[in-house]
Amino acid sequence: MESIDNSQYDGRIENGSLLEQIKKENDIKAIAKEDYPVLAAEIREFLLQSISVTGGHLGSNLGAVELTMALHLSLDLPTDKIIWDVGHQSYTHKLLTGRREGFENLRKFGGMSGFPKRKESCCDCFDTGHSSTSISAGLGMVKARDIKGEHHTVVSVIGDGSLTGGMAYEAMNNASKLDTNFIIILNDNNMSISENVGGVSQYLNDVRTAEKYLDLKEGVYNTLMKSKKGEGVVESIRRAKSSFKHLVIPGMFFEDMGLTYLGPVDGHDVNAMVRVMKEAKRCKSAVLIHVITQKGKGYAPAERHPARFHGAEPFEIETGLPKKNRDKANYTDVFSTVMCKLGQRNPEIVSITAAMPDGTGLKRFHNMFPERFFDVGIAEEHAVTFAAGLAAGGLHPIVAIYSSFLQRAYDQILHDVCIQNMPVVFAIDRAGLVGSDGETHQGIFDLSFLSSIPNMHVMAPKNKWELSDMLKFAITFQGPIAIRYPRGEAYDGLKEMRKPIQYGKSEVLYEEDEICLIAVGSMVKEAETVREELKKKGHHCSIINARFVKPLDEEAILAATKKHQLIVTMEENVASGGFGERVRCVLDGSNCKEQLMAITLPDEYVEHGNVDLLKKEVGIDTDSILNKILGKVSGKGKKTK
Amino acid sequence: MESIDNSQYDGRIENGSLLEQIKKENDIKAIAKEDYPVLAAEIREFLLQSISVTGGHLGSNLGAVELTMALHLSLDLPTDKIIWDVGHQSYTHKLLTGRREGFENLRKFGGMSGFPKRKESCCDCFDTGHSSTSISAGLGMVKARDIKGEHHTVVSVIGDGSLTGGMAYEAMNNASKLDTNFIIILNDNNMSISENVGGVSQYLNDVRTAEKYLDLKEGVYNTLMKSKKGEGVVESIRRAKSSFKHLVIPGMFFEDMGLTYLGPVDGHDVNAMVRVMKEAKRCKSAVLIHVITQKGKGYAPAERHPARFHGAEPFEIETGLPKKNRDKANYTDVFSTVMCKLGQRNPEIVSITAAMPDGTGLKRFHNMFPERFFDVGIAEEHAVTFAAGLAAGGLHPIVAIYSSFLQRAYDQILHDVCIQNMPVVFAIDRAGLVGSDGETHQGIFDLSFLSSIPNMHVMAPKNKWELSDMLKFAITFQGPIAIRYPRGEAYDGLKEMRKPIQYGKSEVLYEEDEICLIAVGSMVKEAETVREELKKKGHHCSIINARFVKPLDEEAILAATKKHQLIVTMEENVASGGFGERVRCVLDGSNCKEQLMAITLPDEYVEHGNVDLLKKEVGIDTDSILNKILGKVSGKGKKTK
Repeated sequence: MESIDNSQYDGRIENGSLLEQIKKENDIKAIAKEDYPVLAAEIREFLLQSISVTGGHLGSNLGAVELTMALHLSLDLPTDKIIWDVGHQSYTHKLLTGRREGFENLRKFGGMSGFPKRKESCCDCFDTGHSSTSISAGLGMVKARDIKGEHHTVVSVIGDGSLTGGMAYEAMNNASKLDTNFIIILNDNNMSISENVGGVSQYLNDVRTAEKYLDLKEGVYNTLMKSKKGEGVVESIRRAKSSFKHLVIPGMFFEDMGLTYLGPVDGHDVNAMVRVMKEAKRCKSAVLIHVITQKGKGYAPAERHPARFHGAEPFEIETGLPKKNRDKANYTDVFSTVMCKLGQRNPEIVSITAAMPDGTGLKRFHNMFPERFFDVGIAEEHAVTFAAGLAAGGLHPIVAIYSSFLQRAYDQILHDVCIQNMPVVFAIDRAGLVGSDGETHQGIFDLSFLSSIPNMHVMAPKNKWELSDMLKFAITFQGPIAIRYPRGEAYDGLKEMRKPIQYGKSEVLYEEDEICLIAVGSMVKEAETVREELKKKGHHCSIINARFVKPLDEEAILAATKKHQLIVTMEENVASGGFGERVRCVLDGSNCKEQLMAITLPDEYVEHGNVDLLKKEVGIDTDSILNKILGKVSGKGKKTK
Repeated sequence: MESIDNSQYDGRIENGSLLEQIKKENDIKAIAKEDYPVLAAEIREFLLQSISVTGGHLGSNLGAVELTMALHLSLDLPTDKIIWDVGHQSYTHKLLTGRREGFENLRKFGGMSGFPKRKESCCDCFDTGHSSTSISAGLGMVKARDIKGEHHTVVSVIGDGSLTGGMAYEAMNNASKLDTNFIIILNDNNMSISENVGGVSQYLNDVRTAEKYLDLKEGVYNTLMKSKKGEGVVESIRRAKSSFKHLVIPGMFFEDMGLTYLGPVDGHDVNAMVRVMKEAKRCKSAVLIHVITQKGKGYAPAERHPARFHGAEPFEIETGLPKKNRDKANYTDVFSTVMCKLGQRNPEIVSITAAMPDGTGLKRFHNMFPERFFDVGIAEEHAVTFAAGLAAGGLHPIVAIYSSFLQRAYDQILHDVCIQNMPVVFAIDRAGLVGSDGETHQGIFDLSFLSSIPNMHVMAPKNKWELSDMLKFAITFQGPIAIRYPRGEAYDGLKEMRKPIQYGKSEVLYEEDEICLIAVGSMVKEAETVREELKKKGHHCSIINARFVKPLDEEAILAATKKHQLIVTMEENVASGGFGERVRCVLDGSNCKEQLMAITLPDEYVEHGNVDLLKKEVGIDTDSILNKILGKVSGKGKKTK
């Protein structure tokens, strides 16, 4: 049986009594120093109890409890500013700023966000969600402070995983010139979502474990001692470099970039961190405090399986196992299985993920073909151009990236893959509404940003078999091609309708007259339900599964106009640049006088919440679609053939 | 009088005789070692003569002559691969691979590209244009080589400027794990397009000038000597860090990232570089060779004014001055002037460029308000999120980035600026066709990728006064807003038509009937010419200046349909997601049965060449537009009012 490991405090916990004293920001300052471990344990217990019920980001939050306490003790909120990179680790911050009640409806529609939100609290100074933005934003706030003659402290808290994203370097490179205070906290848990990758991660590991290199000291020391006077230290150090490399001078890497480095500090020792913060606030430069934390700290299952508890579904505290076992496969599972099969058949297939081997389902491919799998870290830009390089070298790469994260690589898709017409397959998971992660994670722009790129091809499967067929099609295709599929359960209806994928061709699922629904991917299932309802009301209704969003099946669209009074396009994407707009352009070219209706997402960001609720909210659920259609066709006679 | 500085060789140059012996790749290997300086001088002379006539990238190419020679001597092309970051420094590579004749039509329509192009030569293995992609692409090619069991050498050549781009770090971080050969050449000329910025640049400068720190050696040396036995080297080094920081261990920064560092090497000494390449090829890891070059080497005006000779117009060799003086202001000049005025009026205005203070026209703002100007290096992602941070801090930032480079920051615009509805102004220069830089630099996607983002607003001015008015409007606007304007001469017609900018409102320039041209930005001028021609043929023609692409002026568009038979939208952007598509959607909502024609760029990349030729090629010049319109209206009677 698992529970919070309370060994660090002396048992004074009494029914959450300390946490209950914290009603708003700065209340933590009234807590006695010796009670910090008790408060930390209460917070952990609260997080565990809450998140096990609602789901949410557990591991990163359990790891950041003491760090957040130390920040709140050292700063004066909301005057001082904390920018949380990614923001999924901000739960303790929410607790300490009076949002305890919010956890009941965490990530639920209308409830509290799982990320920092300016509109939620004056203590949230910058919204985050995607990785590696916090130093850029923090530096902007520092410059604004200085220009306005203000004097507050600005702190950016960034994980070592986020440090694999290039933006973080761009920002550190720019922070180097500061002659005024800016504090960067490197929350180093040696993990991004899965294990960390790359040279900098190795470097941080060296810093963390510097002790073990001490046995090298004799060699280095002796080399330095023996250097001839005339040779100079530079020369002798150069010669000693190979052993020196392994002797870590803490933070030299960051000092080389122009930052002041402090640390490493134990990220579970509040008082130690408060002391370092005091020191850091005195610096007239950008200071990086290297804090060592443990992801999932205090809850053994999360310590052991950090990837599983990164973004967790509701789970049983005793076992750490999810409360609801999935009975149906999701699209990620399908992708995972097909990738392994394709990998077996074709030795030129390679796969790439940006820090998401679990989330994208590529872990099994990794296990089977370790040499042909690449986890590049949170580095979508590199991932895509790296794939272009693999393709230029004669391989057939599949890049699996969530829709909203692929936005980061827009230029690389356009500039490195598509100009050269490289055969790169984009497997775009979490396309459409994703639910509880909210605005920053909804995958609702990909049809637009991909369709406007020359040479790009875009598909979306109606069900799990079609995802498999599309992957097989894509891998033989000689050019850039994307397959977008939604989060969650894979649709397993329409199994009997499995015509081979043909380039640029849609698929007629039901052929009647009056109304024609042309649906993209996930919306085919919705179209079926809408059709059932329309038929109950006496309407005739065809369904076309678009399959290709680019190129459009113009022939089929035009043919459909001949037989129907109303054409309804359906997509889980914004209107501008989406499927419906492009269909409209095809129709205009003909002399079609039919009516056209586009079911799309509105020109708005969509908040967090259950996907079914969100669909209703934005008007792409069955009822909304049905009402819109009936508004057009009711009272009008059926067109004679 | 200026000419190539030939002091490095002994005068054996005879009418380009060595260069003429090089007809194809690897021919350079037949040149005698002692003739390398002669060949280098011949190449410089050739480049100077060519580029002074055609225009092109001069400085970077003069700087990379010996480096390119050394690579060609060390490698076996096309088996071995060279990836040129950005690619504007590849002229010598083109010369050494048999493309001397191509220089006559360099960057001209149908002629040789100014960048590497796979379709141009088998020795160009990867197309480039934007910055910081070469290490990612090279690493992909290395992995492909290894998986396929091949054995060639892969070299990525990256400038120190490109190293300010985060992608380069993402790639280096990933290269660290290699246990196979990959060579990265850091071509360090201490410049990007303008002066370099940031901590890494400072670091490289320290490496370059390590000698001057030697006087510190005593201090460091003594500290090390005096350390107590029991204290350990780590501890003593930690204490010595502040002085140590200034003592450069060459390349430790890169070694910390997991790369093997060799250098620094004199980038104008062919034989030295050939020796280092030999050493580098033996490494079973990623090796970074730090090569020190001088931008503009050998041509004094380019050495003195590197920014001016980065991408030069045709110039007089004797003086270094452009052959053609601009008599009219371009949009960049207008932007530059207005920014200075705005900066004087409002102390909360700050401006940001990504390594383009000259190109964007912000240099004057910089001179006037150094504290409120930020050159962040080639780091568009950071630039945009940094701007969001400045806005969050209460300032009003204007980010000036060329259209095609802004693609890099698509996610940051969407995620950091627009979700939070931050008042950031995007001044998008080089929007539309840019001409001689070709595919990678055409700014023809911004209307699409910006319009699909919620909360974003997009404007385009018809002439220079309107750019000024729009900037003034934008700076008071409480949300994200973009102004896109083209490269080159600012249109100074229609001066008398200067109605105040109103939110979301277009402007009727000519009001007649029959045909209505609704034009975006640069296309208003074109619309005027088209209208003149249409009137000559007896047609009536209105012109609406769209002003806002987002939000659309739906009212004006609908009103236009009441009076005209044909609505023609005109934009310098691709169709998908562009202005025409969005107008079409507005019209469909009405019961308008008018005809609609969208003049847009095709769904293709547009190559390099004179903008007027390109416009003709893609069908957005006067004649093409006129013919399309006449094809619709000829034979049809004028609609009665």
